[in-house]
Amino acid sequence: MFVAKQYSEKHQIPYYECDTTQFLKIPTLVKMLIKTSGAQSDALGVSDEFMASLGLGWIILQHDIFIKRLPKAGETITVTTEAESYNKFFCYRHFWVHDEAGNECVFMNTTFSIMDLETRKMGSVDDEVLAPFESEKIKRIRRGEKTLPLETVHGEKEYTVRYYDIDMNKHVNNSVYLDWAVDSLDAAFLMTHTPEKIVVKFNKEVLYGNKIKSEYQLDDDGISRHNIISKNDNSAKVTITWKSLD
Amino acid sequence: MFVAKQYSEKHQIPYYECDTTQFLKIPTLVKMLIKTSGAQSDALGVSDEFMASLGLGWIILQHDIFIKRLPKAGETITVTTEAESYNKFFCYRHFWVHDEAGNECVFMNTTFSIMDLETRKMGSVDDEVLAPFESEKIKRIRRGEKTLPLETVHGEKEYTVRYYDIDMNKHVNNSVYLDWAVDSLDAAFLMTHTPEKIVVKFNKEVLYGNKIKSEYQLDDDGISRHNIISKNDNSAKVTITWKSLD
Repeated sequence: MFVAKQYSEKHQIPYYECDTTQFLKIPTLVKMLIKTSGAQSDALGVSDEFMASLGLGWIILQHDIFIKRLPKAGETITVTTEAESYNKFFCYRHFWVHDEAGNECVFMNTTFSIMDLETRKMGSVDDEVLAPFESEKIKRIRRGEKTLPLETVHGEKEYTVRYYDIDMNKHVNNSVYLDWAVDSLDAAFLMTHTPEKIVVKFNKEVLYGNKIKSEYQLDDDGISRHNIISKNDNSAKVTITWKSLD
Repeated sequence: MFVAKQYSEKHQIPYYECDTTQFLKIPTLVKMLIKTSGAQSDALGVSDEFMASLGLGWIILQHDIFIKRLPKAGETITVTTEAESYNKFFCYRHFWVHDEAGNECVFMNTTFSIMDLETRKMGSVDDEVLAPFESEKIKRIRRGEKTLPLETVHGEKEYTVRYYDIDMNKHVNNSVYLDWAVDSLDAAFLMTHTPEKIVVKFNKEVLYGNKIKSEYQLDDDGISRHNIISKNDNSAKVTITWKSLD
């Protein structure tokens, strides 16, 4: 079996990364996981700066997140990642969160692609760039988890992109879409529910100052469906499966 | 000379705590500093939970922040705090950020008070609660730095309090006011300037779902003055002295 190089970091969760019920904020979970992929790339000599020198940048197309339990304030977790496999168009990266007892709390499968920084279009994935990760080259295109389309809009909120929402790529950081999706739901619901599965599909980048509409449908089966709309374009779709907190 | 007990923590700054120019986000700097006061309280057996069991909670009245340089992504900083002194109504706490070479990057002086959790009114500061910090008891009321009133509104933005803005006290976390103040300024200004001094005075708590107006005046001397207004009340005033990034 092919085994990609793994990279791990420990992280103690400060209270300010947690919500009012002391669980890790969902957007912060994603930022924390993605951080380790950057750290692995740096460690292997294929940093974002090196990629940029080739005129290339990573873009995120989809997150599939499976949550056994969200970590809480004060816990020390271990985040592990590997660039599991890739084909001509996509790279598939795995992430895990383990608690101090070694139990798996979170698994995330993220689909990346490579963008030509000049044309802002998708490029093909170069073997040389991927070599240091010992990632398996595969032929097939993997299908990620599905998002569900909205049938009825149960509620919506509007947002304007803030200065601190923008990352070094000069567009809205991928984690912020989850902030908009989650925040559209009622606080009373959020304080009594925790996510089990989150699927995010990114369609279009959003820029500083853009206005956003975050629409949701929340069904009795505990599944919420979200559209993040900017300038009449669907910029991202999110589907979250929730369970009641006891 | 009286010396209060000090408490220190190291912190490596992940990129996601930084803005698009790689400097630590200002609201995150404040959250990071305040975190250490909670950690010291826990370590000394006077945690927030213990305070709550007495019907008391800490509230923040003012931050005076002096910045030599904002730390950047990847740096490991040391945050140190002490409950320097107190009188009948107020506690004065000091915070420092030092870089790996031991240089002081940031100093913050924060004025706390104690709130009766039932009446939501200010209570008097109890000697017993303060004893473990070895804080000096003083008679005088210290005057913090001054905020400047707005003479002309140069710009304003509106915000709605989000679920993740609320902390365990069920009101907007003190750091979020800085998010609203900074974000009201133009991105082009923020990308080319860095703060040297920040004064925040809190007047009134803001709750989940409240609508906020963030007004600013930015003068040629590089000083920005901010009002954070909720329901026609001035909830906080902020004054920031900026300098150009070279």
